[in-house]
Amino acid sequence: MTKRVHSREVETAARTLLAERGVTIPDIAEIVFEMQSPFSPNLTMTECIESVDKVLTKREIQHALLVGIELDILAEKKLLSEPLQAIVEMDEGLFGVDETIALGAVFGYGSIAVTTFGHLDKYKLGIIRKLDTKTNEGVHTFLDDLVASIAANASSRLAHRLRDQEERLSKEEIALNDQEEKIG
Amino acid sequence: MTKRVHSREVETAARTLLAERGVTIPDIAEIVFEMQSPFSPNLTMTECIESVDKVLTKREIQHALLVGIELDILAEKKLLSEPLQAIVEMDEGLFGVDETIALGAVFGYGSIAVTTFGHLDKYKLGIIRKLDTKTNEGVHTFLDDLVASIAANASSRLAHRLRDQEERLSKEEIALNDQEEKIG
Amino acid sequence: MTKRVHSREVETAARTLLAERGVTIPDIAEIVFEMQSPFSPNLTMTECIESVDKVLTKREIQHALLVGIELDILAEKKLLSEPLQAIVEMDEGLFGVDETIALGAVFGYGSIAVTTFGHLDKYKLGIIRKLDTKTNEGVHTFLDDLVASIAANASSRLAHRLRDQEERLSKEEIALNDQEEKIG
Amino acid sequence: MTKRVHSREVETAARTLLAERGVTIPDIAEIVFEMQSPFSPNLTMTECIESVDKVLTKREIQHALLVGIELDILAEKKLLSEPLQAIVEMDEGLFGVDETIALGAVFGYGSIAVTTFGHLDKYKLGIIRKLDTKTNEGVHTFLDDLVASIAANASSRLAHRLRDQEERLSKEEIALNDQEEKIG
Repeated sequence: MTKRVHSREVETAARTLLAERGVTIPDIAEIVFEMQSPFSPNLTMTECIESVDKVLTKREIQHALLVGIELDILAEKKLLSEPLQAIVEMDEGLFGVDETIALGAVFGYGSIAVTTFGHLDKYKLGIIRKLDTKTNEGVHTFLDDLVASIAANASSRLAHRLRDQEERLSKEEIALNDQEEKIG
Repeated sequence: MTKRVHSREVETAARTLLAERGVTIPDIAEIVFEMQSPFSPNLTMTECIESVDKVLTKREIQHALLVGIELDILAEKKLLSEPLQAIVEMDEGLFGVDETIALGAVFGYGSIAVTTFGHLDKYKLGIIRKLDTKTNEGVHTFLDDLVASIAANASSRLAHRLRDQEERLSKEEIALNDQEEKIG
Repeated sequence: MTKRVHSREVETAARTLLAERGVTIPDIAEIVFEMQSPFSPNLTMTECIESVDKVLTKREIQHALLVGIELDILAEKKLLSEPLQAIVEMDEGLFGVDETIALGAVFGYGSIAVTTFGHLDKYKLGIIRKLDTKTNEGVHTFLDDLVASIAANASSRLAHRLRDQEERLSKEEIALNDQEEKIG
Repeated sequence: MTKRVHSREVETAARTLLAERGVTIPDIAEIVFEMQSPFSPNLTMTECIESVDKVLTKREIQHALLVGIELDILAEKKLLSEPLQAIVEMDEGLFGVDETIALGAVFGYGSIAVTTFGHLDKYKLGIIRKLDTKTNEGVHTFLDDLVASIAANASSRLAHRLRDQEERLSKEEIALNDQEEKIG
């Protein structure tokens, strides 16, 4: 019987794989910044980096990264069976398992995350575009979608937190207003 | 006991509602053309119109249209309960039930449909943009997402059919080649 | 311009609607207990109640409740347009917008939540069965699916937390074992 | 540049893999029969077999089968990297990529397919149970979910077709009634 894998081990493996495939947290944070700064003018890169980091603590994302990057690497080494090898290697247009795995990792952050993911999948920004085009240097059929899903999640997370912050402010204001009235 | 509604009645109601809310099949077909013509240089508007028409024969799409447009109209008439009335009327950014209903209608056409929908939700084209901005003339909180889902489905349908056509051609070519060899 | 609705107002409205439609938190917690106790023998009703309560703090769930219960009530009062009125009133078998809205609220808790929701939708337990059968006393076409989605979310949340607890425990045990070795 | 894989080649590979992993079309059809016969008393095994066969012609299902079975086989041969190897080999409870891939293949047949899939994932019937328990004989972490998705799709397909048939019948009846009136 195989021993159960500790969550910390899964997280470390997922983060290490991402780095080894040439994707840094700031790379993803840049996409988040580009997506969210129009709605949030005071947004900083530090907040985007923190948001990406939090998304990477989620089990569903980590598992998706382990599976997707494994398949990319196997395809790179020509170790998949045919016809899967050819399909993954050429990032075949009608093959959707890469988007499916990434979508599964994106549902957790709600409908904003889903639509942001769809947008990033079509209109590839930053590191996603780089991964998508450097086909001669390796296979990134799954990774580009996974990075889009992490960026989409981190964006949705910021949108929800921004609202929370705004409302907390207004709550304090309401409390202050209440106090004023009491004073008056 | 209420009598079961015939599918034809549902389809007619869905198509009528769409027209009454100012959305024509060619309006949606134009978005499909813009999305798919880069991948398919010989694509005609006639094919896009036919694809939109076929998508509108699907039960899941028709049901989504009935529910979404009903909610838009009720909000327009101020007949929803608060706080739902205010949320729908202002198309509140974190409200995601409109996207959820549209997504449910989009899953049926595969992962290309899902990502195309997400893209159209962010980067609103044609009639979707018109619906999204004419807030003073009516409530279209659900309709703009539904139109995006119909356009996304019709686009994905064309992408899959294009492949089928290409392969049928090559099958004939293979058959021809086989014959050639036999002749030789 | 309509004023933005405060999140606290949305949460209060969602909880109130649930109670007014005859669904209590312990009703839902009982389903959670029945689903999760086989995997977690020390599980208490208090933990299940707490888990349901936490799920009800999520925006996506609250929005789904507002929309779904609104449609049930409108159907009860015969205020929907035909043919939607007949479809919702009779909980028509091929109508899937109720499941779609509930599914949208369930994705946030991962794949365990999705499969648990599907199971509860087929094999209706406790209050879900009551809602599904008391058709003569009111329309609950959307509510039974929404309750299934809340129960599924609370179950998935407990499964993930159980793992976290086990791992924290074993971490302490490992630390203790390490200490033992050092002592030796 | 890798040559594009023909759809027929993908379909043949998917069907062959399924057979090689010990799953026959009648095995899946039996689950479909058990799920749908309560709603459709005249249902025959022949119709269930035909429905499963039609589901297997879909690209999204075929791609999901290629990826899922590849991962099962690699895990069986201990060829995956750690910690993915251990996670897949032991069918770890919180690992959800298997359900995610199967879900992606199930969305195409609508909400009935999604809830039927969830149910089959919990309450494993027939060949799904066999695959789930014969852990000593091989790894079927992905395959059991894929079989559940095929069975769910074939069930949903039959439910929709049954309705179509009923309505066609009643159309004829209505036509007949109309004629009767004309005669009268």
